[in-house]
This record gives sequence, C-alpha cells and structure tokens, in this order.
Amino acid sequence: MRNLKFGLIGTGFMGNAHAIALRSVGTVFDDIAAPTLHCLVDADVANAAKLAKAWGFDQSSDDWRSVCDDPDIDVVDICTPNHLHREMALAAIAAGKHVYCEKPLALSSADAISIRDAAEVAGVRTATGFNYICNPLISKARAMIASGSIGDIYSFRGSYQEDYLADPATPFGWRLLRSQGGAGALADLGTHLINMAEYLLGPMAAVLGSLTTVHPQRRDSRTGDMRTVENEDIAQVLVRFDRGCSGTMEISRVATGKKCGLEFEIFGSEGSIAFDQERMNELRLFSNGGAQDERGYRTILAGPEHPDYAAFCPAPGHGLGINDLKVIEVRNLLQGISSGDHIYSDFANGCRVQEISDAIETSAQKYNWIDVSEDALQSLGKNE
Amino acid sequence: MRNLKFGLIGTGFMGNAHAIALRSVGTVFDDIAAPTLHCLVDADVANAAKLAKAWGFDQSSDDWRSVCDDPDIDVVDICTPNHLHREMALAAIAAGKHVYCEKPLALSSADAISIRDAAEVAGVRTATGFNYICNPLISKARAMIASGSIGDIYSFRGSYQEDYLADPATPFGWRLLRSQGGAGALADLGTHLINMAEYLLGPMAAVLGSLTTVHPQRRDSRTGDMRTVENEDIAQVLVRFDRGCSGTMEISRVATGKKCGLEFEIFGSEGSIAFDQERMNELRLFSNGGAQDERGYRTILAGPEHPDYAAFCPAPGHGLGINDLKVIEVRNLLQGISSGDHIYSDFANGCRVQEISDAIETSAQKYNWIDVSEDALQSLGKNE
Amino acid sequence: MRNLKFGLIGTGFMGNAHAIALRSVGTVFDDIAAPTLHCLVDADVANAAKLAKAWGFDQSSDDWRSVCDDPDIDVVDICTPNHLHREMALAAIAAGKHVYCEKPLALSSADAISIRDAAEVAGVRTATGFNYICNPLISKARAMIASGSIGDIYSFRGSYQEDYLADPATPFGWRLLRSQGGAGALADLGTHLINMAEYLLGPMAAVLGSLTTVHPQRRDSRTGDMRTVENEDIAQVLVRFDRGCSGTMEISRVATGKKCGLEFEIFGSEGSIAFDQERMNELRLFSNGGAQDERGYRTILAGPEHPDYAAFCPAPGHGLGINDLKVIEVRNLLQGISSGDHIYSDFANGCRVQEISDAIETSAQKYNWIDVSEDALQSLGKNE
Amino acid sequence: MRNLKFGLIGTGFMGNAHAIALRSVGTVFDDIAAPTLHCLVDADVANAAKLAKAWGFDQSSDDWRSVCDDPDIDVVDICTPNHLHREMALAAIAAGKHVYCEKPLALSSADAISIRDAAEVAGVRTATGFNYICNPLISKARAMIASGSIGDIYSFRGSYQEDYLADPATPFGWRLLRSQGGAGALADLGTHLINMAEYLLGPMAAVLGSLTTVHPQRRDSRTGDMRTVENEDIAQVLVRFDRGCSGTMEISRVATGKKCGLEFEIFGSEGSIAFDQERMNELRLFSNGGAQDERGYRTILAGPEHPDYAAFCPAPGHGLGINDLKVIEVRNLLQGISSGDHIYSDFANGCRVQEISDAIETSAQKYNWIDVSEDALQSLGKNE
Repeated sequence: MRNLKFGLIGTGFMGNAHAIALRSVGTVFDDIAAPTLHCLVDADVANAAKLAKAWGFDQSSDDWRSVCDDPDIDVVDICTPNHLHREMALAAIAAGKHVYCEKPLALSSADAISIRDAAEVAGVRTATGFNYICNPLISKARAMIASGSIGDIYSFRGSYQEDYLADPATPFGWRLLRSQGGAGALADLGTHLINMAEYLLGPMAAVLGSLTTVHPQRRDSRTGDMRTVENEDIAQVLVRFDRGCSGTMEISRVATGKKCGLEFEIFGSEGSIAFDQERMNELRLFSNGGAQDERGYRTILAGPEHPDYAAFCPAPGHGLGINDLKVIEVRNLLQGISSGDHIYSDFANGCRVQEISDAIETSAQKYNWIDVSEDALQSLGKNE
Repeated sequence: MRNLKFGLIGTGFMGNAHAIALRSVGTVFDDIAAPTLHCLVDADVANAAKLAKAWGFDQSSDDWRSVCDDPDIDVVDICTPNHLHREMALAAIAAGKHVYCEKPLALSSADAISIRDAAEVAGVRTATGFNYICNPLISKARAMIASGSIGDIYSFRGSYQEDYLADPATPFGWRLLRSQGGAGALADLGTHLINMAEYLLGPMAAVLGSLTTVHPQRRDSRTGDMRTVENEDIAQVLVRFDRGCSGTMEISRVATGKKCGLEFEIFGSEGSIAFDQERMNELRLFSNGGAQDERGYRTILAGPEHPDYAAFCPAPGHGLGINDLKVIEVRNLLQGISSGDHIYSDFANGCRVQEISDAIETSAQKYNWIDVSEDALQSLGKNE
Repeated sequence: MRNLKFGLIGTGFMGNAHAIALRSVGTVFDDIAAPTLHCLVDADVANAAKLAKAWGFDQSSDDWRSVCDDPDIDVVDICTPNHLHREMALAAIAAGKHVYCEKPLALSSADAISIRDAAEVAGVRTATGFNYICNPLISKARAMIASGSIGDIYSFRGSYQEDYLADPATPFGWRLLRSQGGAGALADLGTHLINMAEYLLGPMAAVLGSLTTVHPQRRDSRTGDMRTVENEDIAQVLVRFDRGCSGTMEISRVATGKKCGLEFEIFGSEGSIAFDQERMNELRLFSNGGAQDERGYRTILAGPEHPDYAAFCPAPGHGLGINDLKVIEVRNLLQGISSGDHIYSDFANGCRVQEISDAIETSAQKYNWIDVSEDALQSLGKNE
Repeated sequence: MRNLKFGLIGTGFMGNAHAIALRSVGTVFDDIAAPTLHCLVDADVANAAKLAKAWGFDQSSDDWRSVCDDPDIDVVDICTPNHLHREMALAAIAAGKHVYCEKPLALSSADAISIRDAAEVAGVRTATGFNYICNPLISKARAMIASGSIGDIYSFRGSYQEDYLADPATPFGWRLLRSQGGAGALADLGTHLINMAEYLLGPMAAVLGSLTTVHPQRRDSRTGDMRTVENEDIAQVLVRFDRGCSGTMEISRVATGKKCGLEFEIFGSEGSIAFDQERMNELRLFSNGGAQDERGYRTILAGPEHPDYAAFCPAPGHGLGINDLKVIEVRNLLQGISSGDHIYSDFANGCRVQEISDAIETSAQKYNWIDVSEDALQSLGKNE
C-alpha cells in the first residue's frame, strides 16, 4: 500500500475533522500507509496558507479546481457546503480522482444519481462521510443482527434529534434555503439515520413521512428582516423494510436538550439492541438467554474485542470520541482503494440515502406511502 | 364525606389491584372516607368466598347482577375481561350506581359511546382505570406544560412497548380475538399512551397509523391446532395535536426486553420532558435556564413536593409503586363523587381514547390521515 | 393461621407506613391471615381517635401501656422516637406480646442487648423494621451470592447517603441529641447499611470508622440560640468480613442531592452486583458468562420471577414502592409468628447492628480497628 | 512558538497514545506549533524502524540514551515500564531536556523526589501523564468547586476500579513485582485518583488505608510454577483534606465488570458533582437553585462551552475519547514550555502523588492515620 496524496477542500468543522483523521490514521492503524496531506483549499488564500501550515499540509490553494487538476493528487476530499458537492465531485471524478465527500452527497436524488453514475463509469473509488456507522459498537450491532443472535427482527425505532435550531431567536442562515440546505433536518440529520437503518437492517421498502416547520420565519441578522424558512424542522416517518419489519423515524433540529441524539431500538424474537450516540461507547443488548430472573438490558462498553477499537486503545471501556469515527472512516476509504472491496458508505450508499430522503418528502406531500425498493427508485431515477 | 360501598366484579390481576387500593386508600389519604369493601363477585362461587375473606370484603357472590341490584352498593367496580365491560357498565348505570371500569372502556367506539352517553344521562360518576396518569410526576409534567415552563410545544415522541407476546411459542389466547381482545396492542397498551398524550398535551387532531401482526398464527394449547391472530402486535402512528405540535407513537406487545415501556419525550421551545414508566419515580427535565455550560437533562425524583406523594411517604426519593397509582386513582374517584369535580379519566375520557384507537385502525386501512378532532368524532359517533 | 391483633404505638411517618402495611398485607398475600388493626396509640387522644377511624383501627388510646396490658392484643408495634423503644419493648415483652419495633432498635448496644435478651427469655417473636432488605431484588441478590453465582467475593462498597441535614439553616432537632437520636447518621442510615451488608455477605469481622460533624451547631428555632449538635453528620468506615472480603461504607445525612441513596457494589470472581435504592426496582448484574464482546452490566427489572413480587403484580417491570417493602416485612413477621422460622431482621439482628454501630464509634475515637466478630461482641456485651 | 522536537521512548500502549497525540495536537489546536516527531526509541531496532515509519517519526533508535544526547531534541518523552522512569528521567534532565513521563512517576517517593528535585534544579519543564484531569468536564468541575458554586465541600467519595486482574487464572506478570510494578493497584490506578482528588479539592491532610491481596499467588506462564504476588489488589482509604472535608477512596484491579471505573462524588452545601470516567462526556451536577420540585441531578454533556472541547468539535454532545485527553495533555505541556506557566500535572504533582501513595501503604501497615500535609511530607522526604 502506498501513501496516497490528499487534496482537501474546505476548512470548516468537517474540514478540520478530516484533517485530524488524515494526520492520525497511520499512527492509529499501523498497517495502513499514512496518507500525505498534500494540499488544503480554502477560498480565502491567507486562511488556506495559515491552516495548511497548522494542520500539516504541504501546500495550500484558494482554487478547488487546482486539486482536481494536480496529477500528484490521488484523492479529492470535499468538505464544503452541501450545494457545492455536485460540481466538485463531478470535476474530481472527471479528472480520475478517488473522491471522499461529506454527507449529504447532494441536494436532490437527481444530483446524487449523476454523481454516483459518473463515479461508477469512471471506476474511481468513493466514500460518503456517514461517520456514525464506523463506530465499533455499530459494527458489533450489525454483526449480531446479521448472525441472527437477536432473532427475527420485528421493529425499528430510530431518531436523530438535536436542538441547534430550537431557539426561535437563532437567525436565518444558509441551511434554511432549499437551494443550499436542501431538505432541512432530513438532509442534516435524517440522512445519517436512514443510512444507519439500512446499514443495520438492509433496504427500506416504503416510507410515509410527515414534515413540520415549527419556525416558518427567522430574522436575517444582516438586514433585520424576517425571512421564510424553506425546509422542515421536524420529519416523522413510518417505514417498512424489505426484510418485513416496520418502524418509525423521528428527526428534529428543534429538540431542545438533544445534542447528538442519534438513537435506535431494534426488537427481535430473541433479543433487542439499543443505542444512543450521546453515549457512543455503550451498546445496550437484551437477550433471551439465561435464567428468566437474571435477564435485563446489559450495557456493553466498547473495548478491544470490538472491531477497530484495539487500534486506538488496548484497554476496554476507555472510550472513543467522535473524531475517532472519522479516523475509521478514512481507514475504510484507504483500505477500499487499496483492496477494491466495497466501501460502506460509498457514493451508491450516499445516493440511496438521498433517494429515500426525497421519497419521504414526496410521501409527506402526497399523504401516502412511497415505494423505495431499489427497483422502484431505479425507475424513478431514470425518469427524472 | 361518607364511606361509599363498593361491589367489585372480577378477581384477576386488576381485581386484586383494585382490592388493595380500596383497602388502603383511607389509610394513605386520611382526609378521605375509606370505602367499604361490600361485595366481591367471581363466577366461581367458592373462589369468590375465599378471596372475599382474604381481601377483606363483607360479602361475596357469583352473580355480577347482584351488585347492580343491591341497594346498599354505591359504586360498581368492573375488573372483568374487556368484552364484558359494556353489559355490566350499562346494567350498573341503569341501576343508578357510580361506575369504575378498567381500561379499555369497550371494544369499539360504538360501545364506548353508548356507555358514556348512558352515564351522562343517568348523572352517575364514572372512572376508567388509566392508572399511569395518576403518577405524581405525571401531574408535575402536566403542570409544567400547562404553565408554559417548557415553552411552546414542538413535538411528542411516545411509545408503549412490552414483550408479553414476543415469544412465537406463547399459545393462542382470548386477547388475540377481535371479539374479546379488541384491537390488540392498541387496546391493551395504546389506549394508555393515547390517554397520557391527551392528558399532557390536550386533544389530538389527526392520526395516521400502520399496523403489523408479527405472528399471524399461534398454537391453541388445548387443541394443538394453529389459530389465526385477529389483531395487531405493533401499531406505529403519526399524530397531530390541536395545539399544533406533531408526534409519533410506537405501540408493541412484541418488544423483547421491554416490560412496562410507557415512555415519552416532549420537546418545547424552553425545555423538554422525558419519562419512562419503568423508572416511574423519575421525571427527566431539560430547561434552557441557567448558565449555558451547566445545562443538561436533570432527573427529578418523586418526592413530597409533588402532588399526592406526601400521603404515601414524607421523605423524597423513597419511591412509589404501581399499586400506589391505583390508590391515587381510587382517591380521585372518591373525591370526584364527593365533590362533583371532573374525574380524569372518566368515561368520556375513556370513550375519547376508544374513538382515537378506532381512528388509528381506520387510518391504517385507508393509508391516510383521519381527523380525530372532537367535532369530527362526534359526527362519526352519531352516524354509527 | 389466625388473624393476629395488633396494637400500634405512634402515628408519625413510620406509624402510618405500618398501618398501610397492616391494612393491605392480607389483600396482597392472600395466603396470609390479615391482621386485625385493634388499637392505635398516640399521646394526643383526639389525634389517636381521628387517625384510628381514618386508618381502620377498631380502637384508640393515648396510653401505650394499655396495648401491652390488653389481653386481646397479640403484637405490639412500636413506631415511636428511638429513645422510647427500650421501655416500650421491655414492657410488651414482659406482657408476653410479640414485638415489632422500628429501627434502630435502641440508642446503645447495652439497651439493644437488654431488649434482645428479654425477648429471647420470654420466647416471643420479634421484628426490627429494616425494610430495605425485604426488596425482592435484594432477596435475589442474596441468593446469587449464596449460590456462588458471582464467585468468591472480593470487596463490598456500600453507602447510604441522604441530604436531609445538608442545609446549615435546618434548625436544631431531637435527632441531633445523643439522648434521643443516638449516633446521628450512623443510627438513622448506617444501621440500614450495616444490616444490608450482613444480610448479603454474612458477619463483619472488624471495622474502622471516621466520623465528621459538618455542622457542629444549629439554631434552635424556638429560642433562636445556637445549640451544639451531639452526633455525627458523616461516617466513613473501613470494614472486613468474616468471609475474608474487605470494604468501605460511606454514610451521610449531608449529601446534597441524595434522597434515598442506599447503594452498594459487590465484586466477586465471577461477576458483580450493584444496587441503588433510588432505583429500587433495578438490580445491576455483571456476569463473566457468555461471549467476551457481549458482556456488560445488565439491569434486571423486578418481576414476578423474583421472591414476593408476584403477590403485588403478575406483570414484570411494573414497579414496587417503598410501602410495599413494609408489606413484605409485615408478611415476614406474621409468617414467622405462625411458623416459628427465623424472622430476618429480628431483635437479635437489630441488636447485632447496634453493636457494630457502637464499634464504629469506638474505632473512630481510638483511631484503630475494632473486632466485631460475634464472639468478641458477646464478651463486650457481657462486660457492659 | 516554535516547533519542538520530541524523542519518544517506548512503543507500547502509552507510546502509541503519545504518538497519536503528538501527530494531531497541532491540527486540533491550530494556535499551537505542531511538535516534530523526531525520534522513536524501542529496544528492538527493527520494530523501532517499522513503527517510526508508520507513526510519522523522522528517525528511530534502539538506544534511549541517544535521544537524551541528541542536541536537536527538545523534549524527552518516557513511555517505558515504571521501573525505568527514574534512570531515563534523570539522564534527560541532566542533558537539559524538558521531560514528559508517564505515570506513576517512580516506584517510590524517594525516587520521585530525586527526579522532581533534579528537574527543579535544572530548570527544565516537566509533565506527568495523568491524562484524566485533562477532560473538559473535569476542568469545569474544578472551576465550579473553586468558584463556590456547590458551596462548602463536605465530603469526597472516590474510586478507581478495573478488573484486569480479577480472573485468578491471569498469569503472573511484571506488574505484580514490587521492583517493577511498585504498589500494585495503588500505583496503577490509585495514583490517578489521588491526583484527581487533589486537582479538584486541594491537598490531602491525612490518610488511613487498608490493603488486600485477593490473589496472593499466580501461575508463571513460562515455568508453570506459582509465584508470590508482591503488591495489593485492593486499597481502601479514609482521607481528610486540608480544606476540612473527609472522604473515602476505593481502588481495585479485581473489580469484575469495571473497565475504567474512575468515579467520584463531591458533596457541598449548595450542590454536588458526580463523574464516571466510563461516561467521560458526562458530568452530573445537583444544584440547590430553582424550584424545590424541579431539582435533580442533571447530566451535563461535554460541549464547546467547556474548556478545550471546541478545538475538537464545534457541536455539543458529540463526544471526546480517551486519546483526546492525551492531546490536551500534550497541548498543556507545549503551552507550559512556551509560557512558563505551571503545568498540571508536572513532576512536583507526580511526586506529591507518589508520597501520598507511600503514606497509604505505611498507614495500612501501622493501622493508623498518616499525616500527608505538604510540610510533613517534605520532612519525611528529607529523612529518607
């Protein structure tokens, strides 16, 4: 495995998280060739230079196209606002680069499909930044479900709730525009939940959503005027999976008190599993085994016996953090490029999530269930 | 306040719980005239006699009509299987008795309406056994919501999940017949959740449900044959309230690991409230007040500063139990009879819950929202 | 089994709790002959009469000796302040009554020994009100330890912390006098913890305590003067058990935020057990069995498979309350009287606890370990 | 601030953790000049070379003295087994290097004092690896205590329990030898707890310990013979602080089920604080403020409003991990070298902890309290 060269576009929250992961992935996983932090791009040339130095990049630029054009670069890493993903991803793919893009992959299914298809045709490897599924305990949960250790699955109860827009006084921002933020809470938070649900339980079959905009207007802090919020604060969804089980999803960016409330419960005939991202080092398991009077939900603490944990720490219960999930995500990308194995979540996964997100919006407008089986979506996609 | 005489019909789980509550209510609440346990009715005359002696009743009978006819009796207390509620309640009302009936009030809205209307015409006082709302912490939650201390309400996320039918090997029983168990999990568990939601947030406006029968057949342990399950194991519901907020409800009798999982989260502009019946002495509150870096969900332990708790124990955090909620429910009934004040939950509340339960079933069949505003239901009721 | 007649002395917190339990025990446990609430005693004759009527007693009195003298009475139940226990218990024993007395049994080992020995000589049955050990989950914990299911016991970490005297502004009261409150937090709270520890792990061998009076003076609310607090707010104890394991005990009445914080952790070679009375319906168990990557503390919810629970409720996870423990305690007393089996906690247990409490005080004064093996205490007792 | 050059000795658990932190500290904290990973030392020359490449070091060596001698190196970072700390630290100090050393600083107070004094005389900056105090929520807790927001402190209840030696079948190892592992659980775990307690509450005044070796012999997996364990599995300690409050400490390496159980409760007149390292992103706070019926322990989730968190993630509740604490520790060292400000924990802190650890051992042998006030220890140290 050779040291791949990265060009990173964007220096915000996600840009920094990617840089931290790129810096440390080789030290954490010593069987991985550490990537080279080749070029950091920011529209502000001085900021690009300053942060490139601080974060350990060899070069900096204020022109994102330069990293697509640079023959030295192997991977273009896109951490810009959502509405810029499409153009950048297509340019990088056109230049034959592997592409790593933050979620959501695009603002619409049509855009996501075009990116996915371009990457497929070009034969480049891709990854979408759905970091939460990289948690060692999520890998463990998936393995338990797959092995049948909690039996036939009866139901899924998922939610992703935060409160970053709960306060009516929070001013208007780009996230509230369709053209930039897409589908609101569904795009920001719901896409993680949809991806998590399918990662654990396989494909969804149909969805029926209900959308609510609690604060239809917010003040523009620059002009002082009230502006119309163009997307929803809350999405509530009924869902059915191909495997036969049913579920609900609750998505909110106005859930006062919730800070990173990605939670789920999965009930099966032999047991159940529960998870809350705010306690990301704990997986709750109920199992029908053992004496009746000694059963109960147990709290499994993440430890070296779970996938990937041992690379961070040989001692159990010591705890990973959110940035460590990004390190695993980058490792998955690097390993996928090297091995050719499927990268979960690649752009096909990212596109699938976007299609379901769009179907939830449609179902809410039509007050009826929408088929999201892969066949149905493929024909929908083709018609758009 | 005089000592009211009770005739109790039924000696199962609920009959015993009512008897315990009737025995102790006057000792717990010393400002309440203790009721007289006048007559206990069970179809098995020997069992009736034996339990009457053990439980402290003056008399026993194997004829439920005898307590309706007995001029000494003030209150007929119905703890029989659901499909018997209607006939007994109507007979008791016809005899001019106050009536206390376990939930669900009836098997259908039509039955529930007939009972409610008969009681209203007769002018007798009534109570339905929705004990969970009698919890001191639920009273506190309701008061906080009513006073606006968590602000405008944005969303409700409720569930009532148990696992008493999770095991496919559990044999067929009367609860699985429409004619006796009514609407399955919705009747057993969902009615508690609907009542709780309206108790806290006021009337629902519309519902849209999805029903699933995970185990469509179960073995009849007598004949050894497989029999068809006639009602649902899981109900998942989208809901909208008159006050404007939206929500989801998840109801399941096959949720492996859940034993009394009546849970809710209510999010408002100024805070949020969360509750789990399995930790019935705890109310979780997030409040926007105070320093930003010291905010978090707090766990309020039930104590004498909450309604009704002090009658049980002057020390905080010592804990009430499920049977104590029944004591409060009985106190509410006795006080309502004495004062004429509204008894929450009376038969009108019980009927309302049944109407919403029916609407959820209809919505699942029609794949569409059903209006459950009080006006809409009244006209529906009139047409049936 | 015949219906035993009770005379109850005291109408405070504990008097009411006993009355509730006496009223309902026969309805809860239908194989137990319900006791007769024969006479209620309160120094205020009008209050005695009023409460006797409300609580369902046949008679009332303002003379506690009358219940000792009454030939109809089988059991004298003592719920008065601690310093009155000795005289009342000795009189009841002298009259040949069975005696049920709240904890702590006495203010000193010498007093406790005299009561214990008198009861033993008279051959009457006795019970001390250490209600916390009556919890179905504590019975389960004890059985697990006894059966070796958590292996050899390595250590015990117990505490009983409340905050009823945390506020320096709380005025002076009788509990702060040696002559009435005895050993402060150790008497109020520590005695429960000592009894619990020995109930679970068998006899203690030696103790070494440290006592602290955080608020040495409090204001007398009647006179306005500051008065000296005569006993400790906090006791911290090192302990060794006969079985070889070691431990710590933390006892405090000034632990701000703790309301009923009777907690313990017990670590063994094969697992561990943890309990917190504030969540009295939960027992936490870690077990070495099963797959390494699926181990964790599980939360066992109380249910009908645990001792005594089913009498209250056939459904698991529905929750018992503090008053239900008293019902079990009364059942144990009635059963013990009827069967002659050991009643845990009888006066011998209550006396043992008092001896250990005294030894902790001595150890704190002498800055050294005190032997509390049963032989050692017996000789100490003989010398006093 | 210039880029300091590090020589890291040791490639085990801690060596890797330091390397990860050194790699990412400049990317996380962009106002810090990223250190240069100059040379990695391991006794196995091939391993040193392989890991140096993987972890991003410029050079490697099998001779630890070479990094002390190398004039390019600014900081010698010691991550070797405990018994090697002394010689390496003294050599590095003699060469005028700043020294960063894992905990415990030494095997005895005498050794720790010699290191501390050498560093003080040489005027080099030092840091000891007590990473747990670097948690943003611990900084917050310390600030709350210091500001008086939980009032006068009444008591401390601390523990550090793990189960890495709970299994009797775990073979003999170097940690069980006095000459290499020092004081057993006290050295491994207790030193973290002592340092944490003093960080939060200031100096201890006196200690009284009790030590237990649960497994006095373990099998040598090489020879097959049983060997004698030379240090304790459990330490239980009574403690008094200079500020007047009292406490207990429970330290165990045989606490089955505990994986990283560094826990404490601190009770004050106005509130209390509780923490559990297994949930390192949560701080529990009880505060006397607000309505009586809305009080309860709140769970504060770590967020950008707490010290250092924002550098890792701008969103609250997303969670830091154990390796992130090391990043903060390294930042503190770099900042301390640059600014000259006190580094908590420097070698003086590390030495202080060792002196208290030794005093606990002495107290257990003498069955009596040992004065650990700073004056007392200074004179002790001088006499040794």
